[in-house]
Amino acid sequence: MPSYKAPLDDMRFVLNEVLNVSQLKEIREFAAVDDATVNQFLEETAKLAENVIFPLNASGDREGCVHSNNEKTVTTPKGFKEAYQQFCQAGLTGFACDPVFGGLGMPQVLNMALSEMISSANMAFAMYPGLSHGAYNALHTYGTDEQKETYLPKLVSGEWSGTMCLTEPQCGTDLGLVKTKAVKQPDGSYMLTGTKIFISSGEHDLTSNIVHLVLARIDDPSTPPGIKGISLFIVPKFMPDGHGGVAERNPAFCGRIEEKMGIHGNATCELNFDGAKGWLVGEPHKGMRAMFVMMNEARHGVALQGLALSEVSYQNGLAYALDRKQGQPIEAKMNDAALSNPPVPIIMHPDVRRELLTIKSQTEGARLLLYWISMQLDISLKSPDEETRKEAKRLVDVLTPVMKAHFTDNAVDNTNSAMQVFGGHGYIKEHGMEQFNRDARITRMYEGTNGVQALDLIGRKIMKENLLSTYLSALWHDIMEGAKAGVSPIILLRLAKSGWCRLWAATFCLRTRAALGVLLSKAGMPNYMRRTMIDAGAMATDYLRLFGVIALGHMWVRMATVAKLRLKENPDSHSFYEAKLATARFYFDHIMPQTRALSRSIRRGGKSLMELPPESFGHAQTNVGLKSWTKPERPSEAAK
Amino acid sequence: MPSYKAPLDDMRFVLNEVLNVSQLKEIREFAAVDDATVNQFLEETAKLAENVIFPLNASGDREGCVHSNNEKTVTTPKGFKEAYQQFCQAGLTGFACDPVFGGLGMPQVLNMALSEMISSANMAFAMYPGLSHGAYNALHTYGTDEQKETYLPKLVSGEWSGTMCLTEPQCGTDLGLVKTKAVKQPDGSYMLTGTKIFISSGEHDLTSNIVHLVLARIDDPSTPPGIKGISLFIVPKFMPDGHGGVAERNPAFCGRIEEKMGIHGNATCELNFDGAKGWLVGEPHKGMRAMFVMMNEARHGVALQGLALSEVSYQNGLAYALDRKQGQPIEAKMNDAALSNPPVPIIMHPDVRRELLTIKSQTEGARLLLYWISMQLDISLKSPDEETRKEAKRLVDVLTPVMKAHFTDNAVDNTNSAMQVFGGHGYIKEHGMEQFNRDARITRMYEGTNGVQALDLIGRKIMKENLLSTYLSALWHDIMEGAKAGVSPIILLRLAKSGWCRLWAATFCLRTRAALGVLLSKAGMPNYMRRTMIDAGAMATDYLRLFGVIALGHMWVRMATVAKLRLKENPDSHSFYEAKLATARFYFDHIMPQTRALSRSIRRGGKSLMELPPESFGHAQTNVGLKSWTKPERPSEAAK
Repeated sequence: MPSYKAPLDDMRFVLNEVLNVSQLKEIREFAAVDDATVNQFLEETAKLAENVIFPLNASGDREGCVHSNNEKTVTTPKGFKEAYQQFCQAGLTGFACDPVFGGLGMPQVLNMALSEMISSANMAFAMYPGLSHGAYNALHTYGTDEQKETYLPKLVSGEWSGTMCLTEPQCGTDLGLVKTKAVKQPDGSYMLTGTKIFISSGEHDLTSNIVHLVLARIDDPSTPPGIKGISLFIVPKFMPDGHGGVAERNPAFCGRIEEKMGIHGNATCELNFDGAKGWLVGEPHKGMRAMFVMMNEARHGVALQGLALSEVSYQNGLAYALDRKQGQPIEAKMNDAALSNPPVPIIMHPDVRRELLTIKSQTEGARLLLYWISMQLDISLKSPDEETRKEAKRLVDVLTPVMKAHFTDNAVDNTNSAMQVFGGHGYIKEHGMEQFNRDARITRMYEGTNGVQALDLIGRKIMKENLLSTYLSALWHDIMEGAKAGVSPIILLRLAKSGWCRLWAATFCLRTRAALGVLLSKAGMPNYMRRTMIDAGAMATDYLRLFGVIALGHMWVRMATVAKLRLKENPDSHSFYEAKLATARFYFDHIMPQTRALSRSIRRGGKSLMELPPESFGHAQTNVGLKSWTKPERPSEAAK
Repeated sequence: MPSYKAPLDDMRFVLNEVLNVSQLKEIREFAAVDDATVNQFLEETAKLAENVIFPLNASGDREGCVHSNNEKTVTTPKGFKEAYQQFCQAGLTGFACDPVFGGLGMPQVLNMALSEMISSANMAFAMYPGLSHGAYNALHTYGTDEQKETYLPKLVSGEWSGTMCLTEPQCGTDLGLVKTKAVKQPDGSYMLTGTKIFISSGEHDLTSNIVHLVLARIDDPSTPPGIKGISLFIVPKFMPDGHGGVAERNPAFCGRIEEKMGIHGNATCELNFDGAKGWLVGEPHKGMRAMFVMMNEARHGVALQGLALSEVSYQNGLAYALDRKQGQPIEAKMNDAALSNPPVPIIMHPDVRRELLTIKSQTEGARLLLYWISMQLDISLKSPDEETRKEAKRLVDVLTPVMKAHFTDNAVDNTNSAMQVFGGHGYIKEHGMEQFNRDARITRMYEGTNGVQALDLIGRKIMKENLLSTYLSALWHDIMEGAKAGVSPIILLRLAKSGWCRLWAATFCLRTRAALGVLLSKAGMPNYMRRTMIDAGAMATDYLRLFGVIALGHMWVRMATVAKLRLKENPDSHSFYEAKLATARFYFDHIMPQTRALSRSIRRGGKSLMELPPESFGHAQTNVGLKSWTKPERPSEAAK
């Protein structure tokens, strides 16, 4: 049976020693944040995650959600409802929400630590309150005062939950194809008609109401075509009665729930809006702007899921590697007699260590990166200084797609590797390892596939907004800090080389070519520009991975810096810091070299990707080789 | 709904044009192989796979196998029994078997082509006859005449099936820990007692008898401890009656079937041998030798599964990419007006092409490599010339672990990527993509985990048997052929560089250090040798992957050579050959650079893997960081 123990020590190391989050107290909104309260939250949430929510993970996977077509209801797995009530009572739904609406007003970075535990314990469960927070954010940013007063206190308390309704059968990535129609009513509301699919937590029995945030097209000749004609609407499952309760049912019904590879405990719904009543959020046709408030939050949430599943699968892979005994240490081969010794725990075998350290180094690096960026998000929203806010926002913007894609790609590999530590036993359901892998698999796809993240990074964040230099300054600053603290110069040089010779150089090359392309385009020669854009599209995924590998190396330098300082202060101090240094060395020895392959692949551009016509991708369409299997031609190898 | 179409054209290209398999006719045993028959087999098997066996793939996954504990029976999913009968009637069980026992005596390379179609169509189904062939081989090589006469005709006809019973609860990789006990009986037979787990096709309703080949330890004081005291036994489910029928049931019962991540259509059994009657196969205590005959065959079979699942998932990913329309070509961003054009098939997007070409290039390369090595297997067994046989065997030996591990690692990634092409739809069961991924996942684990393959490669095949030079000669020969045919010198240089500067150099370095280590060990200084062995163990997986990436590049040079020759003969000829050249270019542009990262990681050795003590792998054991979350120390970023 799998188990989960909240990595509180590592979280505190990141929060207190590396990030020094208490500096957030210098921001007025966080001045009153009370250390004792925070500590209590960390410990209580750990208990809730370990003792209440994790035990529902395997059973939730087995049972799944049940849809009743007659009653249009969805029943969540046994125990979810009670666990959700405990989750709300613990104050977790409003932890980082605005005190005006009943929240605790805590920093997002601390909320991430709490959410990590819940997601590690049970990703399917964590998605119910997770989605609500996205809805909260969109309404908090773009809602009218009335909307805020009606919905926010309920979302903050967790009595109501939220959803994001974007995807339709004919449109996923390309939201310009949204067909759901909104017709304006005399009372200022809209009537929505259309079908949304893949709506996570779209219908369930955990809350008394569900607040759908729906992308739709206003049915009016003035609505622009495509993405510029999309608006955002709030469509509650039950109409609010104006006194904190609910009135009549809105015709927004769940038509079916999907049978999926994993996250069976979360209801993925098809929602049919049959003339459902809704209200515009923000301005007409500016729905994408509001949607991105939710989406960016959601992308952090998905990055968090990647981290969380890597962590829990690592813990279980490690436990097995410490327990399972097979074979002899590889050096025993030097001495035949040693081969009849009793078998050793498989953690003694180098290849098992390689699997484990790969997961460990990527997971701990991801934790620091995500918490750091969440803290930057806090700063970007609340710092009194505008320049500080802007710089923090630039870091958040450039690293959001990197974290979403890199952490989730890694999560699929990490959960796979942790399963691999078990050998054949990893394939058996009762060990729980395969569930982590199945659950992790969705994270590469939803809230924008990882291919879309890569295009967002290279197209918008790098080429258009030129955010790389902000990140590289932070990198440089931390390399210098590392040097002062006495971090190994080899590691610092490797990081600097990857950062500048690979990441900066690839970016510079691309930006220069694009600038030249713009010039040539203006001179009537658009071909060069076209090729540059194709190259950018083709190299986007490799570029994002290059960025991600470097960013995690960067985090390892930050952790090594703190570890060095602690060990200097107290040379007898903890094996904890020694482990950080050893893991950093592993990362730079065996993960960082990926940057060599990626930068080379990037430099080769997109030519060989684009030259094959679509009809030549298959084998079955041609008539070649339909001759007999005999065609002796080259000298025979068989009987020479 | 997924679909499958046998890639006959690509198979024929590989068999006829690249490998020129008809040269096998120069071997006496294959002289009578009839082209028309072979063609008929290819086409009939394609029909069987597409129309009979593939339609049972999704339903077999849904239904799974059912174990009745009372009757000790296992029922396979609906339709499997009838499909198996058609499979036998088509003569596929004995296609490559000895004509003396009723087989058709066809070359193994052709058998691979047939098996590929069956495995693509339904991996869980294909495992039932697949395991039989391993049992056939072990008995054919080591059985007594009487054993052969009793069992082989039944295995060849498919009336009976076979299993390999190795794993026990306490032992997987380390078979020296086998506890199953064999007690010699006065009649020369043995009585076996013990529990075997993870026995694929261990119990089912497809055949009238099942022939278990069981590793056990003879209960005798003279039995050596560990791996050198293991013997192989034949234990039939029902006793043969000596006239081709069966007599009483042997007490070898299925205690349970495992609930797994995938291959639900195949029964993975726990088998309890409660004093079951068995007979020794080969000599006492030489069981591992006989087992390896099965195991090597099984590893080719698993490599084949990797290829087969990559192929079928590619076909479905491609079909979706041609059909699904989202977004505009990336160049449309140059022209805002173009953004309101109708959406294009997603195969127009560079990142989707990257996913597809990665699968395509690895799959087609794997097909040639596997078929080539199967042909070498035929040559190694049947060529009249001893030197030819030996050289062919060396190629088979060195490439077997490479194919097993590299193809199956790729299969997990490839089925993942094909799913990714579908976006969120890939996660939904009805599209069938997630099943390919779940089925593929076991291939990295069984018949020796991929970590074990890597140790076999580096320890036995490279360090001990020094087989690299054989492979590099073949590589050199094909580079020269490519040069003559006019294959791009850039591609040839990249291959040569990877082969010599990376693979050869890494090997040379390791072997030289080992030689020095042996000298120093003899001089009483074993530390250097110990470090070399740890390095070899730590770098084994990277080394195998390096080998695999190069070997597939090698295969692309062979395919490009043929394509160039065909296009020279007839410049107007086929887009088929153009596609081969374009795919080769893609492979060398974007996959081959992996060798840069791998060789660098290899060169860094195992030091950073081994320095962390086992107790420092976890976070939860230490008491660091249990201080308050406030610890202001570094200058604040928040309010600067």
